[in-house]
Amino acid sequence: MSAALPSDPADLFEVARAGNQSALARLLTLIERGGPRSRAVAALAFRTGDTAYSVGITGAPGAGKSTLTDRLITCARTRGLDGSDRVAVLAIDPSSPYSGGAILGDRVRMPSHALDDRVFIRSMATRGHLGGLSVAVPDAVRVLAAVGMPVVLVETVGVGQQEVEVAAATDTTIVVVNPGWGDAIQANKAGLLEIADLFVINKADRPGARETRRDLELMLELTDLGDWRPPIVETVASAGEGVDALWDVIEEHRNHQIESGMLVELRRQRLEREFHQILMARLAEQIDELMTTTPFAGVTSALAAGDLDPYQAADRLLAGLRDASDPLDPPDPLDPPSTA
Amino acid sequence: MSAALPSDPADLFEVARAGNQSALARLLTLIERGGPRSRAVAALAFRTGDTAYSVGITGAPGAGKSTLTDRLITCARTRGLDGSDRVAVLAIDPSSPYSGGAILGDRVRMPSHALDDRVFIRSMATRGHLGGLSVAVPDAVRVLAAVGMPVVLVETVGVGQQEVEVAAATDTTIVVVNPGWGDAIQANKAGLLEIADLFVINKADRPGARETRRDLELMLELTDLGDWRPPIVETVASAGEGVDALWDVIEEHRNHQIESGMLVELRRQRLEREFHQILMARLAEQIDELMTTTPFAGVTSALAAGDLDPYQAADRLLAGLRDASDPLDPPDPLDPPSTA
Repeated sequence: MSAALPSDPADLFEVARAGNQSALARLLTLIERGGPRSRAVAALAFRTGDTAYSVGITGAPGAGKSTLTDRLITCARTRGLDGSDRVAVLAIDPSSPYSGGAILGDRVRMPSHALDDRVFIRSMATRGHLGGLSVAVPDAVRVLAAVGMPVVLVETVGVGQQEVEVAAATDTTIVVVNPGWGDAIQANKAGLLEIADLFVINKADRPGARETRRDLELMLELTDLGDWRPPIVETVASAGEGVDALWDVIEEHRNHQIESGMLVELRRQRLEREFHQILMARLAEQIDELMTTTPFAGVTSALAAGDLDPYQAADRLLAGLRDASDPLDPPDPLDPPSTA
Repeated sequence: MSAALPSDPADLFEVARAGNQSALARLLTLIERGGPRSRAVAALAFRTGDTAYSVGITGAPGAGKSTLTDRLITCARTRGLDGSDRVAVLAIDPSSPYSGGAILGDRVRMPSHALDDRVFIRSMATRGHLGGLSVAVPDAVRVLAAVGMPVVLVETVGVGQQEVEVAAATDTTIVVVNPGWGDAIQANKAGLLEIADLFVINKADRPGARETRRDLELMLELTDLGDWRPPIVETVASAGEGVDALWDVIEEHRNHQIESGMLVELRRQRLEREFHQILMARLAEQIDELMTTTPFAGVTSALAAGDLDPYQAADRLLAGLRDASDPLDPPDPLDPPSTA
């Protein structure tokens, strides 16, 4: 039996800041669902100015991302990053219909840390969130930072475009591949090469690890890199092999980013992308509302009838949006712009 | 040596309609690049009212989609669909930086049809197109329909979100999997189950085909299907096995869609989505322009300084957009909406 949590976002936020993990889980549920309360939570977290160092882990299904994440939790707990031993995990699954804070369910994913109260594990589906995962995840990371989590591991489940974007929006992005013909090439095709700050060849005890390393190195040579050349780390996550070396490289990348000033600049750019994403989502909402009103509904029927092509339909609607502010002369979106 | 092609889109369109494949390739290059000439071509094609039956082929890399597509070309040539023996192929590769009409290069992909002038093969990258692939591909299909192609096979290269959307935007969507543990589950995770009108288990001579079929059947049972239950066809595309049966099922699905009235309804819905996509892309362009102007640039600096969170920044910009029509009282987007 636990005490009832406050329903007001600001009160809930204070309870979570005081260390209550149920309150934290509830905050993340609000973020996940979107809507005004989500926004209130996001604003509270933003205002604290707290940041967490985020590490994205992506790669094809079956590459061993969960096992690797589990091992990285241990590194974060025993070795820490910048002196702190607390760590949060966001497991991102955009395809999951599941939403809401099943803390037990989340902890079962990583059984070795299920009873450790300095570890917070959470899956996110975020179907309802305005702007989708690319807005919900940064919001969630800021909430975790605000309650005192210095490190957030963001594990994505698949390699769809959305997951790649989420992984790329972290401070250090790890791309996990396995030994085997063509795995490096698939990573390239999926756009993973562009976002990787470091590569992990997991299950490196299997045949083909050397060839996969060679393929990755070759592709890196063909890529126009900045002043950071993504290192390649071999691990056998199931046995814990290579994980300490991986944590070393994560720290190395973090230090590089801090010292070069890149961390500040990249975070600024990501914030601007979030803003853009929110703006587009808002506009999409407004358009959906407009679509149901007269005379705009006429545009869609003209489209269905074949009288307007989709480009013309868009032109008419945009012209209508611009002129809609003049109530004395409402424009007719079906009015031809020139004599046919 | 070939005669010079006209540069005016309308003239080019007429030459392509008369059967000139170089002109057709040029039209598709224009579509791919986006911009005003792309739009002119799209409008010309739309106005003809011609439609082609489109078949999408998607699945994980390495599943054998190209080989299968190659075999389906043969079916389209020898058996036809609705009496015609011409066929076009669009090979969609959003990750490719390559753009432009390398007819030879495209034909080399499917060598068995390289010299057949009733087959038109084309890859599309469409980086430049307003609205991306989900607008460019329907435009391209309409151009192909307008020059007399009754069937268009749309092969996607990967299984990113964009490719899944492209494949789903065809009249019949084929999802290709291979035998092997978990392949069906991966298809489910990638969102392929939702879009499939029929499944192909390619390389069905390999171990595990029966298990994969059972997995797919189980997942279909757990899915809320309409009045069409996606059939599962086993093929060995490299040997041509099962491909005739696959063509039978494609015809069956086409007939079902026509007789049930679904074809008309689904095409109407897809057209509305295209319109929506174009609208959003236009608005994104307008916002990008606005971002560079005063006083809107102030919003992004306030965001960078941490004075506004991304939601507040979006609110300010939208309020500014609404009020911008009053030149006598330009709004200051940094003006606080309430006393702090």
